[in-house]
Amino acid sequence: MLYYLFDFLDRQFDLIGAGVFQYISFRAGMSALLSLIITITFGKQLINLLRRKQVGESVRDLGLEGQKEKQGTPTMGGIIIIAAAVIPTLLFAKLENVYIILMVVAMIWMGLVGFADDYIKVFRKNKQGLRGKFKLMGQISLGLIVGFTLYFHSDVRIREYSVKQIIQSEERIVEPRFNDVKSTKTTIPFIKNNEFNYEWLNPFNKKYTWIIYIAMVIFIVMAVSNGANITDGLDGLASGSSAIIALTLAILAYVSGNVIFSQYLNIMYIPGSGELVIFCAALVGACIGFLWYNTYPAQIFMGDTGSLSLGAVIAVLALSIRKELLIPVLCGIFLIENLSVIMQVSYFKYTRKKFGEGRRIFLMSPLHHHYQKKNLHEAKIVTRFFIVGVLLAILSLATLKLR
Amino acid sequence: MLYYLFDFLDRQFDLIGAGVFQYISFRAGMSALLSLIITITFGKQLINLLRRKQVGESVRDLGLEGQKEKQGTPTMGGIIIIAAAVIPTLLFAKLENVYIILMVVAMIWMGLVGFADDYIKVFRKNKQGLRGKFKLMGQISLGLIVGFTLYFHSDVRIREYSVKQIIQSEERIVEPRFNDVKSTKTTIPFIKNNEFNYEWLNPFNKKYTWIIYIAMVIFIVMAVSNGANITDGLDGLASGSSAIIALTLAILAYVSGNVIFSQYLNIMYIPGSGELVIFCAALVGACIGFLWYNTYPAQIFMGDTGSLSLGAVIAVLALSIRKELLIPVLCGIFLIENLSVIMQVSYFKYTRKKFGEGRRIFLMSPLHHHYQKKNLHEAKIVTRFFIVGVLLAILSLATLKLR
Repeated sequence: MLYYLFDFLDRQFDLIGAGVFQYISFRAGMSALLSLIITITFGKQLINLLRRKQVGESVRDLGLEGQKEKQGTPTMGGIIIIAAAVIPTLLFAKLENVYIILMVVAMIWMGLVGFADDYIKVFRKNKQGLRGKFKLMGQISLGLIVGFTLYFHSDVRIREYSVKQIIQSEERIVEPRFNDVKSTKTTIPFIKNNEFNYEWLNPFNKKYTWIIYIAMVIFIVMAVSNGANITDGLDGLASGSSAIIALTLAILAYVSGNVIFSQYLNIMYIPGSGELVIFCAALVGACIGFLWYNTYPAQIFMGDTGSLSLGAVIAVLALSIRKELLIPVLCGIFLIENLSVIMQVSYFKYTRKKFGEGRRIFLMSPLHHHYQKKNLHEAKIVTRFFIVGVLLAILSLATLKLR
Repeated sequence: MLYYLFDFLDRQFDLIGAGVFQYISFRAGMSALLSLIITITFGKQLINLLRRKQVGESVRDLGLEGQKEKQGTPTMGGIIIIAAAVIPTLLFAKLENVYIILMVVAMIWMGLVGFADDYIKVFRKNKQGLRGKFKLMGQISLGLIVGFTLYFHSDVRIREYSVKQIIQSEERIVEPRFNDVKSTKTTIPFIKNNEFNYEWLNPFNKKYTWIIYIAMVIFIVMAVSNGANITDGLDGLASGSSAIIALTLAILAYVSGNVIFSQYLNIMYIPGSGELVIFCAALVGACIGFLWYNTYPAQIFMGDTGSLSLGAVIAVLALSIRKELLIPVLCGIFLIENLSVIMQVSYFKYTRKKFGEGRRIFLMSPLHHHYQKKNLHEAKIVTRFFIVGVLLAILSLATLKLR
């Protein structure tokens, strides 16, 4: 709620510029800066604390170069990512906004699930067991919360125009007519002027469309958080990839939440979603700030605390601005990593059944280990994955005008 | 001129969506994608070609770890950066646009100067000599070309409003009144509603303001291209830093060149500057694509061919959208690196004079070597410089609303 205090003080004393706190762009900038400062300043302390508590990674021997050196590197670094994403949001965003509440809940919820996961792994030295169940329950319950909120909350609406504000020339402007409605519509990427309505999946009884929608939300939350989880296998890979995705989502949220820009770019206008930019900015700052210590050679890992919560909030962000069908492109890195594991395992099982011995598609899965086996330097693999991430982000943003 | 062909074909056959080539956002996306593809596809071939021609770096022994391994790594990689920045621009931008012409000229011009520089260095094994003079002449002549064009060309104008399009609510819009004028105004960052006019530096005779302006242009071109040149000392450092700067300039150019966004964000509207986004996008793609091979451990260096031309175009970009006073923040990495050398050298000379023996401020200059001497891993130093670069970029963009 501090947003109102800042705004009041700024207006009273004309500190920075009257009303500057109204602007999402300004608050987003502050938010990103603060989260960068939090991670970089307190990251070192967290590393020392975790070292003292001996929260070190016990690395499975995969026969990879440089792997031994990772033994004992503190994990659970996700704690600081969560703090750096949540604190600036609490300070600079409007906390009555349903989307903001949803993001904070999602981040902390999956953070706790991931924390439990990491805790069992580190202290009970139990590397499987409870963990799978915990993760699954956490993801399903979060999916339910998010799905119900997005489907039934009265603030979650989209704007439908009868007459759009058509800007034909610099001078001529037609006044728009519109209506904010509850809707199950979402955006189909790459296809022009097209929207998809979840109702279409349920031609029988509209009343039960929520079941389809919520099942889909659960699936997306699971897929993306598992994807982030699997991607988190090389120094900086998950944090950097998430930063690129979060930045792209920040741009999409900014446009979706701005009356003028959304019309200009012909994007679905979602009232109130602009506040998400403040969360996205904090998320970008948190990921990039974490890279300060997490980049090769890593002094800390994010653990499931970090990767599960990052994946979950990315999913919820995409759902909130109705760009969830863009996820396969935008989160392409997570998808490829996920697929590489699925392909490797299924092909191995299939060939073992058929030929008596299991065969492999990749030298090792997830995909990033495949390149390590091919003797590419870890730092180089990570940067190249980032470059592919940037390419996917550009592709995602290019859909803005193609619609 | 292919832009018109694409646009025509697209409209005739409704290929992607009628008129989509009109949109800067779409063309910028294409431009970035193409430059990424060019660098990544042809980078490998360039490396092999340069290896065969033995265009290898002969590294001075600085007593730094891992330095020996760099001996023989091909240099002059800037060639592909230039190609990847210029080709998409020629394809997707309006070539009659004065700013686009300026950018292409600046990139190729300083590329040639850098190439001459690299050539002398590699083949004549003459590490100083001609080089300093070449560089200086190149920078001054480019400064003259750019300065004269920006000052005297009739297409270089800014829009001044008598009545701005004030968007007070979603419904109420006042029609703007404006005039596009020649002007020596520029933007002062961080100070609200303020502009600086170069005329003020010359209270005597307005006729000669061009001398002041052009001198200033020469200084900026020199400072930034030397800055980029000095920054180019660790694997990926100059290319990554330039990518961050170019992306920020792309955003600033997009806003400066768009009637609606510039008014909404209260930024100086510069007619025609929107086309620069296409060049910026290609530049971002070129730098990021070059990182594919240039990141630690580097398979190729950009050489002066790359760093001088990158620095020069960054300077000209900032000048074109009248954000040159933002350079100390936006190009803060280049500035710090530059300053570290100047401080180190002057302090050394000063103390040698005073105490008979030279003392140092940094363990080694430029600054990035200081951290290497402190035993930070090269890859980590580079990532941390990038993070500082992102921080500076956010600060630069935050000035958008502070004005």
